[in-house]
Amino acid sequence: MDKKISSAVIKRLPRYYRYLSELLDQEIDRISSQELSKQMNVTASQIRQDLNNFGGFGQQGYGYNVEILKGEIGKILGLDRQYQVIILGAGNLGQALANYVGFERRGFIVSAIFDIDKKKIGQPVGNLKVYDMAELPQYVEENSVDIAALTLPKAKAPEVAKELDKMGVHAFWNFAATDLDLPSEAVVENVHLAESLMRLSYNIANPVKK
Amino acid sequence: MDKKISSAVIKRLPRYYRYLSELLDQEIDRISSQELSKQMNVTASQIRQDLNNFGGFGQQGYGYNVEILKGEIGKILGLDRQYQVIILGAGNLGQALANYVGFERRGFIVSAIFDIDKKKIGQPVGNLKVYDMAELPQYVEENSVDIAALTLPKAKAPEVAKELDKMGVHAFWNFAATDLDLPSEAVVENVHLAESLMRLSYNIANPVKK
Repeated sequence: MDKKISSAVIKRLPRYYRYLSELLDQEIDRISSQELSKQMNVTASQIRQDLNNFGGFGQQGYGYNVEILKGEIGKILGLDRQYQVIILGAGNLGQALANYVGFERRGFIVSAIFDIDKKKIGQPVGNLKVYDMAELPQYVEENSVDIAALTLPKAKAPEVAKELDKMGVHAFWNFAATDLDLPSEAVVENVHLAESLMRLSYNIANPVKK
Repeated sequence: MDKKISSAVIKRLPRYYRYLSELLDQEIDRISSQELSKQMNVTASQIRQDLNNFGGFGQQGYGYNVEILKGEIGKILGLDRQYQVIILGAGNLGQALANYVGFERRGFIVSAIFDIDKKKIGQPVGNLKVYDMAELPQYVEENSVDIAALTLPKAKAPEVAKELDKMGVHAFWNFAATDLDLPSEAVVENVHLAESLMRLSYNIANPVKK
């Protein structure tokens, strides 16, 4: 697949991937654009346009082969490999991420969780035990780490991210309510929950007239 | 404020609001567009364009009055009132949301948390106790509920959302890995963590050449 896919289509791919995964779970192995359109609440022509980027998987009178299409989209999303994830912060949110089996199913393996709180260090979280944050440099040196999930307080997160970047970890899933200030090629995906809540209150305060 | 503000600007408001809040916390009461530009990593002309929507708070040689500007943006975001929030699901994620003091500070008051798990019911979560999900209809009848945060399994979330909608709760903060299928005027803000993680893996798999 060498064809360039537009960033608007890329943005929609995770949602397609989710729906295709659900169809496979239900043992549905092919689906028409009309049916997918109904389920996803997107027009059928949008679906055909988007999925045409992936070659001839949609056939007249047959529909899409769910497994092949999911595989192709997965490759583009980088889901055809595994990622070793460490979690910084063993609070409720860090524990929620560590325990969410759906991530592992998609190839995101949580291999360690760290905290500075003596009461948490050594305690079990799922199949893991909480490491002392002081062991982080040694852990990163001895283990492959692809992604660091940051569930630290916002005052700590940028500094820990910078240290990790220096240690060679360049991808961050950032839950701290602050932006990371990282050099160069680091990849950051922010989950700013407070901003999400503000979008909700905006939509409550400004209802769309229908 | 009767002027229509574009949806592109609206989307950026939560981030402005967050930065302005941080400035106030640091007791900075005025700031130039240049300085804000440096901190937010947005061009100064973009900032001037965006903030001009809010009238004459930016003055040549003075900059923006942080508190007034924050107040104006807060009003548009619906943050000039309180919201009563209930949480459905007292797992790690539900508990993380219940314990996050930042939400309360912005006017989102978590007033109750519900679960079906007998082991969780009655247990403390922050200042609250976990209610039995069976008490939900009565609770909603007797208390004002503005927002329901759904941290339920995806198999349960759509059904519970529909029930809540019928009970008169029309705003949902949805963490379940599924779309809600709600009638008409319901307001839904989705936080699809698995999709967020896929955007991260996409950016790892497809590095931007610099």
